[in-house]
Amino acid sequence: MALRITIDETDFKALVQEIESQEGYRKPIGFGIARVDRGQLSPEKILQASFPVVNWNENFGSAAILIAALQESGVDVDFTSSEFVYDVKKKFVKNAMNAFTPYLNLALGEAHKNVQVIKTLDWIAQTEKLKKDYRIVFIFEDDAPLSPEAVYLKLYALSTGKAPIRSLNLSGAFGVLENVAWSLGQPIELEWLRMHEIEMKLLGEYPLIESVDKFPRFLSHIIPADNTRILDASKVRMGAQLHAGTTIMPGASYVNFNAGTTGAVMVEGRISSSVVVGKGSDVGGGASILGVLSGTNGNPVSIGENTLLGANSVTGIPLGNGCIVDAGIAILEGTKVGVNAGELAKIIEANPKAKLKKAGKEEMVFLKGLELAGLHGVHFRQNSMNGMIIATRSKREIKLNSELH
Amino acid sequence: MALRITIDETDFKALVQEIESQEGYRKPIGFGIARVDRGQLSPEKILQASFPVVNWNENFGSAAILIAALQESGVDVDFTSSEFVYDVKKKFVKNAMNAFTPYLNLALGEAHKNVQVIKTLDWIAQTEKLKKDYRIVFIFEDDAPLSPEAVYLKLYALSTGKAPIRSLNLSGAFGVLENVAWSLGQPIELEWLRMHEIEMKLLGEYPLIESVDKFPRFLSHIIPADNTRILDASKVRMGAQLHAGTTIMPGASYVNFNAGTTGAVMVEGRISSSVVVGKGSDVGGGASILGVLSGTNGNPVSIGENTLLGANSVTGIPLGNGCIVDAGIAILEGTKVGVNAGELAKIIEANPKAKLKKAGKEEMVFLKGLELAGLHGVHFRQNSMNGMIIATRSKREIKLNSELH
Amino acid sequence: MALRITIDETDFKALVQEIESQEGYRKPIGFGIARVDRGQLSPEKILQASFPVVNWNENFGSAAILIAALQESGVDVDFTSSEFVYDVKKKFVKNAMNAFTPYLNLALGEAHKNVQVIKTLDWIAQTEKLKKDYRIVFIFEDDAPLSPEAVYLKLYALSTGKAPIRSLNLSGAFGVLENVAWSLGQPIELEWLRMHEIEMKLLGEYPLIESVDKFPRFLSHIIPADNTRILDASKVRMGAQLHAGTTIMPGASYVNFNAGTTGAVMVEGRISSSVVVGKGSDVGGGASILGVLSGTNGNPVSIGENTLLGANSVTGIPLGNGCIVDAGIAILEGTKVGVNAGELAKIIEANPKAKLKKAGKEEMVFLKGLELAGLHGVHFRQNSMNGMIIATRSKREIKLNSELH
Repeated sequence: MALRITIDETDFKALVQEIESQEGYRKPIGFGIARVDRGQLSPEKILQASFPVVNWNENFGSAAILIAALQESGVDVDFTSSEFVYDVKKKFVKNAMNAFTPYLNLALGEAHKNVQVIKTLDWIAQTEKLKKDYRIVFIFEDDAPLSPEAVYLKLYALSTGKAPIRSLNLSGAFGVLENVAWSLGQPIELEWLRMHEIEMKLLGEYPLIESVDKFPRFLSHIIPADNTRILDASKVRMGAQLHAGTTIMPGASYVNFNAGTTGAVMVEGRISSSVVVGKGSDVGGGASILGVLSGTNGNPVSIGENTLLGANSVTGIPLGNGCIVDAGIAILEGTKVGVNAGELAKIIEANPKAKLKKAGKEEMVFLKGLELAGLHGVHFRQNSMNGMIIATRSKREIKLNSELH
Repeated sequence: MALRITIDETDFKALVQEIESQEGYRKPIGFGIARVDRGQLSPEKILQASFPVVNWNENFGSAAILIAALQESGVDVDFTSSEFVYDVKKKFVKNAMNAFTPYLNLALGEAHKNVQVIKTLDWIAQTEKLKKDYRIVFIFEDDAPLSPEAVYLKLYALSTGKAPIRSLNLSGAFGVLENVAWSLGQPIELEWLRMHEIEMKLLGEYPLIESVDKFPRFLSHIIPADNTRILDASKVRMGAQLHAGTTIMPGASYVNFNAGTTGAVMVEGRISSSVVVGKGSDVGGGASILGVLSGTNGNPVSIGENTLLGANSVTGIPLGNGCIVDAGIAILEGTKVGVNAGELAKIIEANPKAKLKKAGKEEMVFLKGLELAGLHGVHFRQNSMNGMIIATRSKREIKLNSELH
Repeated sequence: MALRITIDETDFKALVQEIESQEGYRKPIGFGIARVDRGQLSPEKILQASFPVVNWNENFGSAAILIAALQESGVDVDFTSSEFVYDVKKKFVKNAMNAFTPYLNLALGEAHKNVQVIKTLDWIAQTEKLKKDYRIVFIFEDDAPLSPEAVYLKLYALSTGKAPIRSLNLSGAFGVLENVAWSLGQPIELEWLRMHEIEMKLLGEYPLIESVDKFPRFLSHIIPADNTRILDASKVRMGAQLHAGTTIMPGASYVNFNAGTTGAVMVEGRISSSVVVGKGSDVGGGASILGVLSGTNGNPVSIGENTLLGANSVTGIPLGNGCIVDAGIAILEGTKVGVNAGELAKIIEANPKAKLKKAGKEEMVFLKGLELAGLHGVHFRQNSMNGMIIATRSKREIKLNSELH
């Protein structure tokens, strides 16, 4: 069987509706076609998946066509699993070309990118075999990913900003991915290196290895916005999300997967996994924001807008907008922070919804870091005359996030 | 018209004098010929300029010849602008060859490098078109640079040590340079990557991107001295200046443009833009020296000679020779620093010109960081028994900079 | 003369015994055959040595054969020097092939790796000249290395884990190695770059330089264990030792040569030269462990098992098992650390062999960092109410190292 040629947009939509109305059909949360790098020794292992286009909660019509193109080429698409992954074959491409006929000439530039992918595959298939190089992936349920292709699709959804940080289920992703050597962006099995070490070293052909990791680098897959800067590709793992205008300096900075920025942010420090930093904030040189796996008792840290983390400071609690953590100090959940009555009143004024009690006339109350979590306009510092960690009302402007307020 | 062949050095000098005496002629502050990388989509955009030789307040005779070689090939050199940039064409090269005739056979090794450039261009022009690949740049006035070529020439003047750090006007340089992806040292327009993403990813031809930035890396343009070490090229931005013998470790270090060292320095921390560090000093692992854009109220920080910044310390004030900032502490302009009367007397003795008042018999005076700025022989530490930041007379030798004293 | 063909294992062993019984014969501590990169301008300079296999206190039979293969090809092997290095020539390879005859067909995979090296050299020699590309190295005495080949062999012994960290004499290694530019893993003399700068830049052929250093990167020579991760090759110098399961994050981390881990360790900070970190420990983001050259008065620092160094902390003393250094604090040899009587008793209980005196009823005693060096189960923190650095009994489990206890 073959998927039919559609003659115009109306006909295309009719076909989509026909496909979607089939028994058991499910619209995928995400889908895409990837070129995959397979193991040199174990070709059944997928070492990397490069998606030219990813779809996340969008383009359901294209998804229907691609599903039908698989079905009509004899593949039994299983809608009951959380994900479905299959090889891209010539018959499938031909089916998709048929169904996409009205769009073939329109698929250029930013338009109809999924159709562009099919056209390019059709063009490749005319001159060479598709072999096992391409895989199509559908995610029907945001469960723990079962395949490297599904992990990559989720990392792409995060890194393209199509899915918010922390919104996806990545449980077990580390177990699904292979740990490989990366040479000029290409993954190599470590065991293959071992098998060929003697020969390659003696012939002077040992490859340049830039990293050994389960994850590739962000810049090997993602093209950032024109005003985003990443001064060292090693500093941003695939799966990180960097909002336009973000700058990642090369000193002590790092952005892990499932972490990043939601506005233009200057980053000279570490944004651990699960951390989100808001617009206009500044993560100073060497500053560390702790992740769920490193000292926050599992509470993910969000940093608001227009907040400054000083050089070599450490933050283990969420912070609101317009805060300052002074250079060199550490504010953790259990840190006792002195606040005098006057400053406390000002902090409460800036945070009307916070559950803070005003202090009496006593000079100073001590609050735990966790009690100050998420507040706006707080300046954390260490009194250099007596070593006390204190909080005052910061002089930074508290910019409100119009999307949140 | 053509520039004439000169027959010997005397004749050459006569020609130079003739050129320099023309109405309106100005000797350029800096000049050079660069090979340029142009935009893949917008060839009018200069993405990078590689200078084999830069001249800064030197070689005015060669400058005169190159200017006349342009003029005689029909180019109207505008001396009234702060800079002049033009394509290098075959006629220009021929003119310069003529005028440089007495030096053609002498231009080897370290001798007559500008003539070597012209000879090489002449050799290239014999086998291929020069196209739009080469640009000649003259800077007549140290104004804000107007072109990428002028920005690069100034960055070269800094990075080759021909112009002191902070001595050049780089206002607006960020606006003049394009933000591009760097792949094996070559700049690529982000929009070009976007246009070819589908095709390149499906064909497995997506380039390795090592950074996205307006600036290239120092080591893509500058050959350091034999005893200089840079363990990771991403750590030093083009426009930085590293004196011979400087070592840049790969941990948390970074040297921004218009910043660097004026002697052999061990660098394991961050040297922000505008910061200068003197001979024999040690910027410890993760130490941060704040730049004019990061917490110093616009006061650029100089660190003297033989000064030690401990691991993870933060310095926001200038320091003299023979100082120590202990590991993990932060000395900012507003930090209150306790000094007891005895130590203050010793500090004053080591800094006879400083405007410090001796303390009375009271135990301790508190000075702001800014009041201690630039002093020699001060040891900053935190008393671990009571948390007080204190300053004492350091036991480090205060080596005097013979050039400054 | 030629080394004879051996007919079986018994014959081979007889030959080995014959060789070893010669007058003056010494078994080498280490040996191996390397492909070398020589200076572009000074081919007598060895810029890099790549060993496909290294032997360290092992495989003495193979060593005997290789020594005899040299001798029978006319080389006078000097057993009186601490090391012996010689070019690998076709005659030598033929001799070794003869003697290794019983093993030629067995030398595959993990078996008989030295024989695999000889077989590969024999195969190479059949199609091309061996030129000066290969060197054989024997180390007879662990003295200061005299040649780059011997330095590399020792670095390999450390990085493959065949020799413990700090166990080898590397005195003067810096003086023996050349400082070179590294381009895609290949070393280039700086002077060669200078000589060709004009031509290469004008032709657009200037090489990508990733570092300038005497040492190559660990990942250019060593294939780590399957569960080891190194997210940025620049972070680990050749000569470092990383136990299986160690992860090196790309933020502020670094592992110098002759330093590393003896178990699975999470590394987000700096492991300076001579530092050893034990199983299950965590070097937090930006944490610095001082090396013998940076603030420890020459005492190398060992960190035990299951110990946590908080983000941006600094450690200048050895620590035992199950310790915690809180984020952002510095514990140096001279740091005065407050311990109250109750906690001191618990620390003494956890460290029965330590030479600590119990405190009386007084609230607090102050011990220097050095007095607490190497203890198990100590939690270092700063009291955020009064700035005092204190030590308490940590709640971490003290796992004992079965090899040490």
